[in-house]
Amino acid sequence: MNTQQMAEKFTELCRAGQFETAGKQFWADDVVSLEPMTGEWARTQGRKDVEAKGKWWAENNQVHSIKVEGPFLHGDQFALRFEMEMTPKGKSRTRATEIGLYEVKNGRIVEERFLSGA
Amino acid sequence: MNTQQMAEKFTELCRAGQFETAGKQFWADDVVSLEPMTGEWARTQGRKDVEAKGKWWAENNQVHSIKVEGPFLHGDQFALRFEMEMTPKGKSRTRATEIGLYEVKNGRIVEERFLSGA
Repeated sequence: MNTQQMAEKFTELCRAGQFETAGKQFWADDVVSLEPMTGEWARTQGRKDVEAKGKWWAENNQVHSIKVEGPFLHGDQFALRFEMEMTPKGKSRTRATEIGLYEVKNGRIVEERFLSGA
Repeated sequence: MNTQQMAEKFTELCRAGQFETAGKQFWADDVVSLEPMTGEWARTQGRKDVEAKGKWWAENNQVHSIKVEGPFLHGDQFALRFEMEMTPKGKSRTRATEIGLYEVKNGRIVEERFLSGA
């Protein structure tokens, strides 16, 4: 499976809202996940901790709808654009856009990096 | 000027269709430009050659409309999403989507990398 095929499978799962399954299937064991923020979740390494971050996020944000565009390809990197209607715990409903940039090695995601829109 | 401010100025110029001005103003002298293809223009280094690539592209593609979304930010990187209606020389009119990923150092773009959509 080349990067394009892998990216397409990963995107399909995200589009179906199955982020956890997508991660379990395609993250490398030592995957690095980078968020555009400071603090505890800025850099997370390792499948177990990245899964914990996903769980924390899902518990603290109610997602009403999600739109996934992509994959955009360049060599062993691909990008997805996410558009979400969500309500963070204790806050009001908002619309968020984000780019996810993924680096692939041997059919696995070794790094994911999120860039946040306005 | 921090990366966010720089990214916003660059984006404004792109949104106005002033790609050449945006490049002249913000490319580092040894900027590297990476395209999702093989061949002559896959990797271009240096302001002069990157400008030549832009000139070549403009001469070989008629752009009917362009939509720029962003900037999406993460540290010293930012991304833009481009959506273009265009006619490549000798081909038929098409719609193209692309992500541009930019790396900034000292207020200048040191690398730009394009990821192509379907």
